[in-house]
Order: sequence, then C-alpha cells, then structure tokens
Amino acid sequence: MTTGEPVTNEPMLYAEDFAPGQEFPFESWTLTERDILEFAGQWDPLPMHIDRDAADRGAHGGLIASGLHTLVIYQRLVVEALWSRTAVVAGRGFRQLQLRRVVRPGTTLTGRALIADVTPRPERGDALLIVDGQIVDDEGFVVLQLISDGVIAGRAAWDGHRNAR
Amino acid sequence: MTTGEPVTNEPMLYAEDFAPGQEFPFESWTLTERDILEFAGQWDPLPMHIDRDAADRGAHGGLIASGLHTLVIYQRLVVEALWSRTAVVAGRGFRQLQLRRVVRPGTTLTGRALIADVTPRPERGDALLIVDGQIVDDEGFVVLQLISDGVIAGRAAWDGHRNAR
Repeated sequence: MTTGEPVTNEPMLYAEDFAPGQEFPFESWTLTERDILEFAGQWDPLPMHIDRDAADRGAHGGLIASGLHTLVIYQRLVVEALWSRTAVVAGRGFRQLQLRRVVRPGTTLTGRALIADVTPRPERGDALLIVDGQIVDDEGFVVLQLISDGVIAGRAAWDGHRNAR
Repeated sequence: MTTGEPVTNEPMLYAEDFAPGQEFPFESWTLTERDILEFAGQWDPLPMHIDRDAADRGAHGGLIASGLHTLVIYQRLVVEALWSRTAVVAGRGFRQLQLRRVVRPGTTLTGRALIADVTPRPERGDALLIVDGQIVDDEGFVVLQLISDGVIAGRAAWDGHRNAR
C-alpha cells in the first residue's frame, strides 16, 4: 500500500464503474479492552472509555468503546473493501452518522458499504458518490450507521492526474 | 483523567447548565507529517495520506491528512474544552460533518464548540444537546464543520447513577 498501487489484483474502480445498489462486504475486526483504553486515551479520554471503575458505576454499566473508535474501524474496513482500489479524489464528509448501540470489549465488528447514489459531473470528469455504510456487532445489531459523500475520478481524469505530474 | 474526576477545578456541567449560544474555545494542535503517516497508516491507508510520491502526483499535489484524523483531533480538543467536565451519558453521532479544506503537514488546528440547542427530557432527567463544532486551520479557514448530538445527565440523575452502584 505504500507504493500507491492497489493492494489486490482486483481491477481498479473509476467513477463510471459505480451504480446504486452495489454492495461491498467488510472483513471483521475484534476490539479488545486494551484497544479501547489505548484509542480513547489518545483521542476521547472520557471516563466511560478509559476508566473501568468509573465506567462500572456509570450509565452503561461497564467500559464502552469511543464512537470515534468504531468510526475509524469502519474507515479501515471500507478502505480495505473498496477505497484502496478506487480512484478516490476526496472524502467530503458525512450527511449523517448514528451511534446506535454501545460496543463493549471483546466485540467482533463487521459491516458493509452500499452504493446509494452516483452523480456524474462530466465537466469535471468525476462523480459524487453517496455511500450508505454500516458496522454491525457479533449479535447482528447495527452499531454504526452513516451516509458518506465522496468524489471519485473517472478513468480519463485519473490518468490525467497521473500523467500531468 | 484516569480517576474519572474532572481534569480542572472548573465546576461540573449538567444538563440544566447548558443554553444555546454558549461557546467553548479549543486549545490548538499541530499536525506533523509523521502524525499524518502514522494515523492514516493505521486507520485510513489511502495513497493520498500515506504515500508522499503518489500524493505529490495526485489531485491535491501533496500529502494530506485523513479527514478522520482531523475529526479525532476535534474530539480530543472538545473533550478537553467541554466534555471532560460535563455529565456526558452518550454521544449519539453527527447530523452532518463536512470536510471543507485539506489539512497539510505542519498545520496548526484549533476551533470551538457552540451549544446550538438544548432539549430537556424531564421524564428521563437529562437533555439532548446539539453542538455546532468547528476546526479551523492557521489561515483561519474552517477545515471541519459538524453538528453533533449527545445526551447529558441532569444533576439529580447523575448523582443517582453514582449512588446506585
């Protein structure tokens, strides 16, 4: 991945290759208590994520993962399943992102990305892509639901970038 | 912070202490190239974030930080400025999150959280809090804009949690 080349032998995906309804399933990711403490200690140091005793006494009755932790796991899984072999120009953000259920230590997460909408921009040689993303826990509950916006290059524009520099 | 106690001597904030218009300014955070490579290598391993040569040839003309990296920096800064001394029950997610400008190595980020709306839920003893959050770069441009949803306990409900266990 450090060469900038796709990580698999699957064909590269450009704007014109996407259509609503395409689905990209994720690999799985198990979160240990140590992972939760480490991530939250760095980025979301609230007692419910970093302090076992306080978390036991708190509203959730035990330590829970930062929602941002679930989100970066989503990102890692969607990069592996989709973006690593896609002509990504930019992520634009999220239209909506819901944390629907707490994630406790030992949970194995997986999920999928569903192409919800594709808007070609012929004048720019790219397309706006709307993705409906989900992370589910090992009981099958959706713990994270989001709608993301991104810009994907068409084949000609992507080759243009590569050749222009 | 590992004791679950507030990190400052400022008074604890409960649901009844919030009102629309209150603003919480952030400290600042400087992102090095090494930070960008490390974070993205773990969570968002796309060439534009982890591969200098590919990034130089790409649409942005150089390495840029993962948008998720900017988001976790937002979270760290808002925890320090606000949530670390607030009776947080849960984050619910984001209504909207826009990545408005790329963040390059060496950028110093800061920002603020603005209380946009407070909806008390007397039957639960808490309130829904809507926050309008921003991260700005050292040229004053907004690089991240978001609207977050959370649940904050009232004083009585918070003390109830602490005493019930």
